Amino acid sequence: MASLSTCPPLTRDSVIQACQLIRPYVHLTPVLTNKTLSRMASTPRDSAAIGDRTPARPILRLWFKCENMQRTGAFKARGAFHAIKRLQQEPGWLESGGKEKGVVGYSAGNHAQALALAAAEDGITSRTVMPTTTRPNKIAATKGYGAIVVLSGPGFSGREAVAAEIVAETGARLVPPHDHPDVILGQATAGLEFQEQVSEQQKQEKNSIGEGGRGRRRGIGLDAIIAPCSGGGLLSGTALSCEGTGIKVFGAEPEFEGADDGRRGFYSGARITAHPQTPNGVADGLAGTVSATPWGLIYDRGLVSGMYAVTEEEILAATRLLLERLKMWVEPSAAVPLAVALFNEEFRAMVEREGGKEGWDLGLVVSGGNVDVDGMVKLFS
Amino acid sequence: MASLSTCPPLTRDSVIQACQLIRPYVHLTPVLTNKTLSRMASTPRDSAAIGDRTPARPILRLWFKCENMQRTGAFKARGAFHAIKRLQQEPGWLESGGKEKGVVGYSAGNHAQALALAAAEDGITSRTVMPTTTRPNKIAATKGYGAIVVLSGPGFSGREAVAAEIVAETGARLVPPHDHPDVILGQATAGLEFQEQVSEQQKQEKNSIGEGGRGRRRGIGLDAIIAPCSGGGLLSGTALSCEGTGIKVFGAEPEFEGADDGRRGFYSGARITAHPQTPNGVADGLAGTVSATPWGLIYDRGLVSGMYAVTEEEILAATRLLLERLKMWVEPSAAVPLAVALFNEEFRAMVEREGGKEGWDLGLVVSGGNVDVDGMVKLFS
Repeated sequence: MASLSTCPPLTRDSVIQACQLIRPYVHLTPVLTNKTLSRMASTPRDSAAIGDRTPARPILRLWFKCENMQRTGAFKARGAFHAIKRLQQEPGWLESGGKEKGVVGYSAGNHAQALALAAAEDGITSRTVMPTTTRPNKIAATKGYGAIVVLSGPGFSGREAVAAEIVAETGARLVPPHDHPDVILGQATAGLEFQEQVSEQQKQEKNSIGEGGRGRRRGIGLDAIIAPCSGGGLLSGTALSCEGTGIKVFGAEPEFEGADDGRRGFYSGARITAHPQTPNGVADGLAGTVSATPWGLIYDRGLVSGMYAVTEEEILAATRLLLERLKMWVEPSAAVPLAVALFNEEFRAMVEREGGKEGWDLGLVVSGGNVDVDGMVKLFS
Repeated sequence: MASLSTCPPLTRDSVIQACQLIRPYVHLTPVLTNKTLSRMASTPRDSAAIGDRTPARPILRLWFKCENMQRTGAFKARGAFHAIKRLQQEPGWLESGGKEKGVVGYSAGNHAQALALAAAEDGITSRTVMPTTTRPNKIAATKGYGAIVVLSGPGFSGREAVAAEIVAETGARLVPPHDHPDVILGQATAGLEFQEQVSEQQKQEKNSIGEGGRGRRRGIGLDAIIAPCSGGGLLSGTALSCEGTGIKVFGAEPEFEGADDGRRGFYSGARITAHPQTPNGVADGLAGTVSATPWGLIYDRGLVSGMYAVTEEEILAATRLLLERLKMWVEPSAAVPLAVALFNEEFRAMVEREGGKEGWDLGLVVSGGNVDVDGMVKLFS
């Protein structure tokens, strides 16, 4: 990781620069729309499903940013490439044998593969600390991208300590999965692209069907984006990419076994820093707690407008819809924003209130697609 | 269906015109590449898997035309929209109450939904004859697109007769799933787009990395395309779209329970017109036999260079790779061309021979993504 003293400020301008820096190395992932899913989101829910209350009547035009099509299958490639490129800009790093000393990360999932790939492409040694309980195919994939895998025992608790030992022994730089400005600025590039791609498609549509066609609102651009939240790198980055644009940003979490730490912290005014026990729900990518630097953007700087949580059943239903309707292979964590848009009545009532008759163009970040067929079969059996 | 006497000739120029006619109504589906899958295809197979022979050593750069992202989830939308638009060009059709008399199709799958959608968008009555054994979700989807569904008893045998009765009673026009020039010309547009999109991407890549980068061959364009073959509409259309370009076209079928009727007919010199019993393999979209008009293009006009078949296990393995690696939700029928490229030693040896050291840029038509999660779980359980 580049030294904190050399990091660019956490501003939207820095996101634009990050985007220029990493564009040759990451995919400009597609942005999709889907009439069926937008219609479902704009249909009041069956009152049988929501108890006594009157169902909300939001009008939603959904846009999907498909980071499952990103290199290594998840948005994490953005943060990893940005961190690795920035590190090489640090004065003296290369000359002091930086490439050989390398980098070290800790991750049981998408960050591990992303860091391994980004380091390998520049000939930088990389080590990843993974729990012994990590699925063998994930360990194999990480090695396949060129990393040295160091096992840290079961569970997540010991891995930061093991990573710190490696840093002490080898002089490697730590690349944490979310708690660093360079990583946040990298993840933020997805939000920036999303804004540009939606505006571009809206303009094309206007040109082809004339003003006011298909009931689209007059403006151009997204009204809001929902991003999933675990450590908070993607959510805080997305929020930063929208700062000053008027686009509202919301976080989405599973509620199962307390994985909605971000939401609970957000509404109680204090960050929750650890889970008593790691949540073990279907959205296995969202089991972490929000880190300090992301929290500073999400809460202290007020860049996130609200946090919402959904049930396991709602996440699976949204996953099913992304598979069958959007035809995209996604991991359940990536479906949590759609679950909020379709099933969270609190969110939907807020959109009805704020979006009114014109409704909202709502962006959903589809964060990744790293689940194997056997894992998916287990989820739906 | 427009009267045969008004149909354009089956030439590549007619495909270009068909493409212009339907472009506003169908999606320009994405063309993807995938390094992992190209590397796998270019790696000799483990000799344990192929018995005594020496494994072939083809060099393959794979391109995927993602018709699973097409409207209604399959390439069939192309033929249906083209048939419906052409019908409306027929002199006198509209004036004689054509829209009210409507159209009728027979299909248990993707053609049914495609025809329903294309007819509904132009306010044309449509009826679809489906076997009583059709899955309820497919019947519901077809009704959802606006068609009147007529059940014809179990199995496929009676459906053409029921469709003919409807034609006699209502004056509706039959839109068969593959045996008509307008349908073939519509399906052919996928192949035309594929050629243009690959050339465009290759040019961009050349510009960005300079001549000769990454070991790419000097030329621009595809060397060959593999399309799945059932009734032969997609395969014959793809072949027509390549006529005179030098791009070779191959057909891919399942071998299970005799579903490789196209291959057997191709090498015995006579079309097989019916199955003694409908094949019931994993690639349920490829259970039909090749129709007369497609056969004329495939065999009599020699537009197809070869036909290859693969096993059930190979189809499932290729499906798994498209899901996990390409991150695309596909039905097993859509994975049959990839299965040929990865697992058919006869095909691979031919590519080694003909492609030599430069290898081939090989296009694979990913024909559709209409399988539900429960169906997919069953396939992989």
